[in-house]
Amino acid sequence: MKNLDLYFDLFDRSRTSEQAEEELHQLFSEDIVFVLNGDRKEGLENWKAFVRSIYENNVDLKHMYEGWRKHEGTDLYITRWAVCGKLASGKVYTQTGIDKAMLNENGEITYLENIPDQQDLFDAY
Amino acid sequence: MKNLDLYFDLFDRSRTSEQAEEELHQLFSEDIVFVLNGDRKEGLENWKAFVRSIYENNVDLKHMYEGWRKHEGTDLYITRWAVCGKLASGKVYTQTGIDKAMLNENGEITYLENIPDQQDLFDAY
Repeated sequence: MKNLDLYFDLFDRSRTSEQAEEELHQLFSEDIVFVLNGDRKEGLENWKAFVRSIYENNVDLKHMYEGWRKHEGTDLYITRWAVCGKLASGKVYTQTGIDKAMLNENGEITYLENIPDQQDLFDAY
Repeated sequence: MKNLDLYFDLFDRSRTSEQAEEELHQLFSEDIVFVLNGDRKEGLENWKAFVRSIYENNVDLKHMYEGWRKHEGTDLYITRWAVCGKLASGKVYTQTGIDKAMLNENGEITYLENIPDQQDLFDAY
């Protein structure tokens, strides 16, 4: 679960640190599947493009999370999270939701699903 | 407006830095009046106690703000803000709202009013 515990902090620090961005991407497998509010995408290059798009649209961003827990009887890890951000437009916003994730035998993140409580979060991007 | 522009960052860094906390309190006048969701309090000692209570209840906290603007025809400065936090219980939360502030002739904050969009914010404290 080490990669999951590094995830949110590295995501936030990737905005201003190339080293953090490199470490962030190393948490994932090449064949990562990620789902953003129901929209499914595949592959590490698409993941990297998603992260870049976030930082083109956000001049500041901070995640907090309650802690990853194994979902009984499945391979899923789940955590609740909260975020606040400031868009390039100057507007500030918040969002809450849950993330679901799966790891491969090497501990790499192979699946990451972001489920915001407010379903129009990614319409802004 | 310098003290207002330092305010949110020093508030966040006060959680882990005594020096930031000291600098935060120096932004205010001794006779500061602050209003939290309609509840009015006075004096720097009460302000310090409020900040301490926040950090007894929050293990992490991050503010973002859109920028202080003078409210035309008044002495008030106003900004919209967003916050995310993690409570000592482990729960994460967000809040948005506006702050209104006034400065004295020395540039110290003499009035600070916090108006959350969601009116039960401070019931948690």
